[in-house]
Amino acid sequence: MKQFINNKESLVTEAIDGTLRTAGDRLARLDGYPHIKVVVRTDWDKSKVALVSGGGSGHEPSHAGFVGQGMLTAAVCGDVFASPSVDAVLAGILAVTGKAGCLLIVKNYTGDRLNFGLAAERARAFGLKVSMVIVDDDVALPDLPQARGVAGTLFVHKIAGALADQGADLDTVTEAAKRVISGVVSIGMSLDTCTVPGSPKEERIEPGMAELGLGIHGEAGIEQVGFSGARAAMQMVVDRLAPHAGEGPLVALLNNLGGATPLEMGVLAEELISSRIGERIRCLIGPAPLMTSLDMQGFSVSLLPASAAELASLKMAVAPHAWPGCLDVAPVAVLPLPDGLTPIQPMPSQNARNAAFIKRCCDILIAAEADLNMLDAKSGDGDTGSTLATASRALVDAIGRLPLADLTQLYRAIGLELSQTMGGSSGVLLAIFFAAAGDASASGSNAVGALKAGLDRIQQVGGAQQGDRTMIDALLPALEALPNGLEAAAEAARKGADLTSTMTKAKAGRASYIAESKLAGHNDPGAEAVARLFEQLVAVDA
Amino acid sequence: MKQFINNKESLVTEAIDGTLRTAGDRLARLDGYPHIKVVVRTDWDKSKVALVSGGGSGHEPSHAGFVGQGMLTAAVCGDVFASPSVDAVLAGILAVTGKAGCLLIVKNYTGDRLNFGLAAERARAFGLKVSMVIVDDDVALPDLPQARGVAGTLFVHKIAGALADQGADLDTVTEAAKRVISGVVSIGMSLDTCTVPGSPKEERIEPGMAELGLGIHGEAGIEQVGFSGARAAMQMVVDRLAPHAGEGPLVALLNNLGGATPLEMGVLAEELISSRIGERIRCLIGPAPLMTSLDMQGFSVSLLPASAAELASLKMAVAPHAWPGCLDVAPVAVLPLPDGLTPIQPMPSQNARNAAFIKRCCDILIAAEADLNMLDAKSGDGDTGSTLATASRALVDAIGRLPLADLTQLYRAIGLELSQTMGGSSGVLLAIFFAAAGDASASGSNAVGALKAGLDRIQQVGGAQQGDRTMIDALLPALEALPNGLEAAAEAARKGADLTSTMTKAKAGRASYIAESKLAGHNDPGAEAVARLFEQLVAVDA
Repeated sequence: MKQFINNKESLVTEAIDGTLRTAGDRLARLDGYPHIKVVVRTDWDKSKVALVSGGGSGHEPSHAGFVGQGMLTAAVCGDVFASPSVDAVLAGILAVTGKAGCLLIVKNYTGDRLNFGLAAERARAFGLKVSMVIVDDDVALPDLPQARGVAGTLFVHKIAGALADQGADLDTVTEAAKRVISGVVSIGMSLDTCTVPGSPKEERIEPGMAELGLGIHGEAGIEQVGFSGARAAMQMVVDRLAPHAGEGPLVALLNNLGGATPLEMGVLAEELISSRIGERIRCLIGPAPLMTSLDMQGFSVSLLPASAAELASLKMAVAPHAWPGCLDVAPVAVLPLPDGLTPIQPMPSQNARNAAFIKRCCDILIAAEADLNMLDAKSGDGDTGSTLATASRALVDAIGRLPLADLTQLYRAIGLELSQTMGGSSGVLLAIFFAAAGDASASGSNAVGALKAGLDRIQQVGGAQQGDRTMIDALLPALEALPNGLEAAAEAARKGADLTSTMTKAKAGRASYIAESKLAGHNDPGAEAVARLFEQLVAVDA
Repeated sequence: MKQFINNKESLVTEAIDGTLRTAGDRLARLDGYPHIKVVVRTDWDKSKVALVSGGGSGHEPSHAGFVGQGMLTAAVCGDVFASPSVDAVLAGILAVTGKAGCLLIVKNYTGDRLNFGLAAERARAFGLKVSMVIVDDDVALPDLPQARGVAGTLFVHKIAGALADQGADLDTVTEAAKRVISGVVSIGMSLDTCTVPGSPKEERIEPGMAELGLGIHGEAGIEQVGFSGARAAMQMVVDRLAPHAGEGPLVALLNNLGGATPLEMGVLAEELISSRIGERIRCLIGPAPLMTSLDMQGFSVSLLPASAAELASLKMAVAPHAWPGCLDVAPVAVLPLPDGLTPIQPMPSQNARNAAFIKRCCDILIAAEADLNMLDAKSGDGDTGSTLATASRALVDAIGRLPLADLTQLYRAIGLELSQTMGGSSGVLLAIFFAAAGDASASGSNAVGALKAGLDRIQQVGGAQQGDRTMIDALLPALEALPNGLEAAAEAARKGADLTSTMTKAKAGRASYIAESKLAGHNDPGAEAVARLFEQLVAVDA
């Protein structure tokens, strides 16, 4: 498996340094690389109870990401999925522990228990007050008395962190941590295994299955279950947790195990809140990556029946940005749609000259259908003629309901008709053209000025300039010549359209993806349509 | 591909609702599901310039995650990788735009340009002031004048958002947005393609290769490049960006495209800061998922040569939690290791009785090596005897340097020796046993009390209780009987050890993974070792 690392030996130290680069004067690391990887608060005076946690890496932002005011005082980081050494833990303890003492928050894995435990003894031999709690929130294996510690650990960090920050003594902080541990339950589910750096990925999950009750070190879940979507998945998770979650109000923590997308996590949050325990969930932490398992496409839910004091601790603001907050759950606020989405149909009005002019333009484009399609086939999918003809036919049918006597309203109404009848980009662009022309007309522009305003706008929105092999190459010179009469405009349009046959590098629109050789010698169909329109108008005028 | 969704039709609306569940009274959505998916601020009074952005979904937290004080006023969300409709954009504009007007921030994709563009026209027809900027920060395709809009868009959101929040007028906000757009450059790299919901995953990246210059919609990068680790990858990215990034100080944005782990992103941050443009990077935004491409295992770097005013805007605090802050880059702070990691060697002292007792214990365990190994082979890897014998031999060798005359120091010294010579969990546990005994002895406990304190501690750290088929089943009754003499202790130890042969369900240690039938009829080797030790001490005493 490819990963954005240099080598697995330096992976953790490089990642810690990368994180600390922007930590300002808030965080530091101890000078013990590569064996001692400890992140500590520097804004720390040892007068309060220190909180030290840690364990193997691969669970980021746990634990280094939660070092800071209101949460951990130090994080002791092992290599990926490997417990840190006794010396590393001891270094962390000694670096931050003063007279108030230190609480070690340890997830229930043998290596962590032993290494943190022995480090605690060695620290105590220095006369330091050190207590230790073991987090065992995973309910996946209810028969084992030694349940694993997983994402529920965050509840312990946060609640103990709040108390320590408020100056509580070591016994108080320790007892609070133990109460949280006795209450919190978690379980995880995943659709795929994780990729351990330097090891081949184990492909053990069957097609159509998910793993339920997995740990955070790539170990297999207690069972593979059929996967039929987010709703059923969350229901299974809730079914496992509910028997352990008491009766009262709950705080839930929705953890991304690493590889689930924010979209998936949003859906899972909705399913959790909509589940049979959803009404009991007063507050939600996440969804967020909190205790990950490298890139595992999975999630875990942790539930804590929190007391009022615990809830207050969970809601306290903290320095670490990785903490997503503990937010009240409420129904989604829904605002009514604003007025104005249904365009007001203009009052029809009569003007024989304008009606005839529109009809004439439409007839010209309808007559050009086959020719323009053939031209488009050289550089596109051959439908420019049909697109224009279809829209023209619809516009002819609509003439009776157009506000023909008011030019401003007429431009806008044509724009509206085109946006509803003409598909594709060109339909939207022409709708914008006429809407902007209507705007300019409302502001007092004459006809040429209004059409130029429309052209400006579609250049801005569409991004095409003169020379980019689009209809603009004919329309722009035509509008510039129009004050000199329709004949001058037609001449300019034709010249511009013919010039497109020499533009072998289209810079906008679909033709920009076509080989140069296919473009040479053929006019752009949009520009050709504009030229024909002006030429035919002259011919009819004449 | 399995994903935590229910179906692709409801994916985006469910994810938005899941996100809004915890938005309090800060955010709402418009009542236009499923076609109109618009998230708006509710703490908004229309007296300031509104910022509306959006586009296809699949880029979370963009854009709904950035709605809130100091950033966007509304986000218009399309389906995955699909532009929202004109009606949806118009609804967003109308919902939040007052007299101060509205700036549309649009990434440079045809669909977004057209739909936002036409919506702007329709809003203008209501007399609203609407301006629009197109973000085109991607330098992957330098020859195309229409570069894509990617993660650099966040700079526009943040800087325009700060100005709007401070009450700047529409022209000022629009001009500021345009200045940012003219300066910001981005490029992305990925090791894998993304998984579009409902579509099979395209496997187009060759083994050993990465894609450079990719968009955020799963489109192929401009080229596949050889991948040889994070350092070379970041160097290629920097090489592409540097020619477009001027000369002065820079703000960098390091974006997770979705599927890179926090560890990988930490390494990439370190490589970016260590790169040849690293010294110019004064501030860093991220690493964080900001403009993702579903689950793509990739990253992008955006660079902005920010003015002092722009930097101030980037640093302003905002409500959306998805914004990771714009933090000063500095060398990693490194603190010296604390004193005390190298254990102080106790002063040796003489006591013939204690020396003889230790020697006797060690000899007993050395003599039991083969028997204990055989016993362990029934339920483990057959090394319990050797582990104890090796440690005993080392301890015998160390007797001359032990503080034999001071029991407190002696316990601690034995703990230290064992932690250095005895491998595995049992070595750490015995080290903890003697360290805790030393602690208790220092606090005034007699020998039995000290040994009991040691036992308490290893029960806490190791998690085993009496009846769990461990050495505790012999040691606990032996220590309880010890006040009645060594003989009583030996009897209790033997009884406890023999009882382990009836314990067919080990609850701690490695034997907990062994089938019951293999455990029946054999004593636990640790418990047997304790029993032998006490029995032989009696025999020698006699």
